[in-house]
Amino acid sequence: MEKLLVINCGSSSLKYEVYAMPNKTSLGKGLVERIGSPTGIITQKSDKGVIELNEPLPDHDAAMVLVKKALTDPDKGILKAIDEISGVGHRTVHGGEDYSTSVIIDEDVIEAIKRNTDLAPLHNPANLTGIKAAMEMLPGVPQVAVFDTAFHQTLAPSSYLYGLPRELYTKHKIRRYGFHGTSHRYVSKEAVKLMKRDVENTNVISCHLGNGASITAIRQGKSVETSMGFTPLEGLVMGTRSGDLDPAILLFLLEKGYSAEDINKMINKEGGLLGLSGVSNDMRDIHLAADKGNQDAIEALEVFAHKIRQYIGAYSANMVKVDALIFTGGIGENDIRMREMICHRLENIGIVMDYDRNKANGSKPGIVSKDYSPVTIIVMPTNEELQIATDTYELINEKYKSWVLLKE
Amino acid sequence: MEKLLVINCGSSSLKYEVYAMPNKTSLGKGLVERIGSPTGIITQKSDKGVIELNEPLPDHDAAMVLVKKALTDPDKGILKAIDEISGVGHRTVHGGEDYSTSVIIDEDVIEAIKRNTDLAPLHNPANLTGIKAAMEMLPGVPQVAVFDTAFHQTLAPSSYLYGLPRELYTKHKIRRYGFHGTSHRYVSKEAVKLMKRDVENTNVISCHLGNGASITAIRQGKSVETSMGFTPLEGLVMGTRSGDLDPAILLFLLEKGYSAEDINKMINKEGGLLGLSGVSNDMRDIHLAADKGNQDAIEALEVFAHKIRQYIGAYSANMVKVDALIFTGGIGENDIRMREMICHRLENIGIVMDYDRNKANGSKPGIVSKDYSPVTIIVMPTNEELQIATDTYELINEKYKSWVLLKE
Repeated sequence: MEKLLVINCGSSSLKYEVYAMPNKTSLGKGLVERIGSPTGIITQKSDKGVIELNEPLPDHDAAMVLVKKALTDPDKGILKAIDEISGVGHRTVHGGEDYSTSVIIDEDVIEAIKRNTDLAPLHNPANLTGIKAAMEMLPGVPQVAVFDTAFHQTLAPSSYLYGLPRELYTKHKIRRYGFHGTSHRYVSKEAVKLMKRDVENTNVISCHLGNGASITAIRQGKSVETSMGFTPLEGLVMGTRSGDLDPAILLFLLEKGYSAEDINKMINKEGGLLGLSGVSNDMRDIHLAADKGNQDAIEALEVFAHKIRQYIGAYSANMVKVDALIFTGGIGENDIRMREMICHRLENIGIVMDYDRNKANGSKPGIVSKDYSPVTIIVMPTNEELQIATDTYELINEKYKSWVLLKE
Repeated sequence: MEKLLVINCGSSSLKYEVYAMPNKTSLGKGLVERIGSPTGIITQKSDKGVIELNEPLPDHDAAMVLVKKALTDPDKGILKAIDEISGVGHRTVHGGEDYSTSVIIDEDVIEAIKRNTDLAPLHNPANLTGIKAAMEMLPGVPQVAVFDTAFHQTLAPSSYLYGLPRELYTKHKIRRYGFHGTSHRYVSKEAVKLMKRDVENTNVISCHLGNGASITAIRQGKSVETSMGFTPLEGLVMGTRSGDLDPAILLFLLEKGYSAEDINKMINKEGGLLGLSGVSNDMRDIHLAADKGNQDAIEALEVFAHKIRQYIGAYSANMVKVDALIFTGGIGENDIRMREMICHRLENIGIVMDYDRNKANGSKPGIVSKDYSPVTIIVMPTNEELQIATDTYELINEKYKSWVLLKE
């Protein structure tokens, strides 16, 4: 049995989880918050118990020292010693056009992550900090980068090119990249298993609906369409992100005297469900308000569902056939009513929900369509951490043969 | 028989056409170019012959004097005297949320066109100039405004709201308006006639593909979805317009030091088919280049067709059934190969083209789908001028009962 550490490092937080492989068991996980502040917190949960510590955390190295301390706590620790960890998998946001699969991290990979910082100015530097801190803590232990963008490198030019002057692509690398790749890959693979089908003859549309949300069309294991674009802003209406806009709206607002920063805030932090409902970015709050008759909240729900239906239709049109529609993410897994709203009237394109099954299924992995539905509707909880652990295990043990390899 | 004048007035040009109603015969038409320059030109064609005149045209009033001169030319004129005109119909771009139908112009209408200038800063003032010049030329003759946006005022909030803070809608009126309404209305009505169906039980998707391009879903005579948005930039890839973009691309370019003007130019004048192909904004040139193996031109065609397929799919998903798919506009009417590219693989959503019929049909009104196709594919040449003349005739004669009235 190998013990692997999965790290998701943000600018002021760090999530981690320990997996026992190859049997895919989580041994426990933790969250470090407020990195860079004198009042850092770590919370760790495992079957040994809960650890909660408050300590000043000037930087990510300090955070990593605390992680080590919690992991190897003599009483409630997950490990006896830190060197039980035989590999580390890092969630890494932007691989640009450099990586279409997960990779073992070497100097070239670190250079590529740096090179793509321009495309993910907040995330890639934070991810790199996590990689470096983990390398210092565990010298000689292999580290793996699992990119959010890699899965979507199979998109064809007709899907990834924008209607812009060519040099914006050739010079500035402006194209559709797509995100949430690890989640779409995980749930589509699990859905294919659940249906007892073979990936080579299965096409699915996967809806990852959380505070961030995206839809991906996956033909025979390869991503062929995805709704997030150059950045995670494009596509669906999200918790606070606008999703698709007439780009001229930005020029109109600049003309009106709004600054680029104002606009950035409006479309990334104050838009989406929050902006439309005026209530919250949390779907549960919006349902509550809508149930009480709040018209803005009702419209927010309708706009959200409408946009998702549009993408499902758009992607259906570009696939010869669709075998499954998958719901995942916080909303996709738990919001039974929203799943119902989305599928309502999709019968036209062969998607026929069984509303009783949908209700009875709840958040479990399961089929919620009618037996006669041409497209099988599946609820599949996502698990990006497990997918990262799996990639890490396979790469370290030279068993990595992604069913979604780009370069064949 | 009544003779009506149709005017489409731009900032430096003015198109006009005379119709005999109610029999809908065009008596001739003309184009004035380079208004505001010392080298204005008017060209007029009718069965009386061609008139071409060069004259200094300081302003739209001078242009209108020249129009009158050409219309009543003793030799090749369309009219004996200008007072034969019993009504004037004006193509008017932006009616905002004020007009959902065509209207006879009075002071209120002029005020509303002015009020909506903010939303169409180039077009509405030019349209107003044309209205005023025509009123001076023909005092007491009724003038009618036919808005590009009016047809789409039937959109539901779920279709017209963007995922933005509410106040951008309530304060700045930022929402989806849609354009090309007169064309979509005309061709959908003609398609319903061609199919010998009744509008009350017919749903269609109309593709207006010209240098500007948009797709509209029309349920029982009412526009329910349209791809152009707050401005005519959004939606499909067009001749020089980008269509849909990740809005964050604009913020990225501002950050890179591009000015708002640079960006405006890139996405409105240098993008689209021109930007992608590097060849031309004219589809015929792009086909020629693609046939010679130009990879950028091939990709431009693929991106164009792909986006259209996506919208057809998106709109199919939101209608319970689709009875017809209509092609119109310069490309839609004439580009047999592009029609084929678009419909290729749409069989999945019930759209089955008969490629031989498509080829044989050319630009005529006609059905180009297989007999067994669930969705009938129709080529229907657009005629916005005739629709404007018809609206004008009906309004003047109190027969205007649009089959697409919003407020019932």
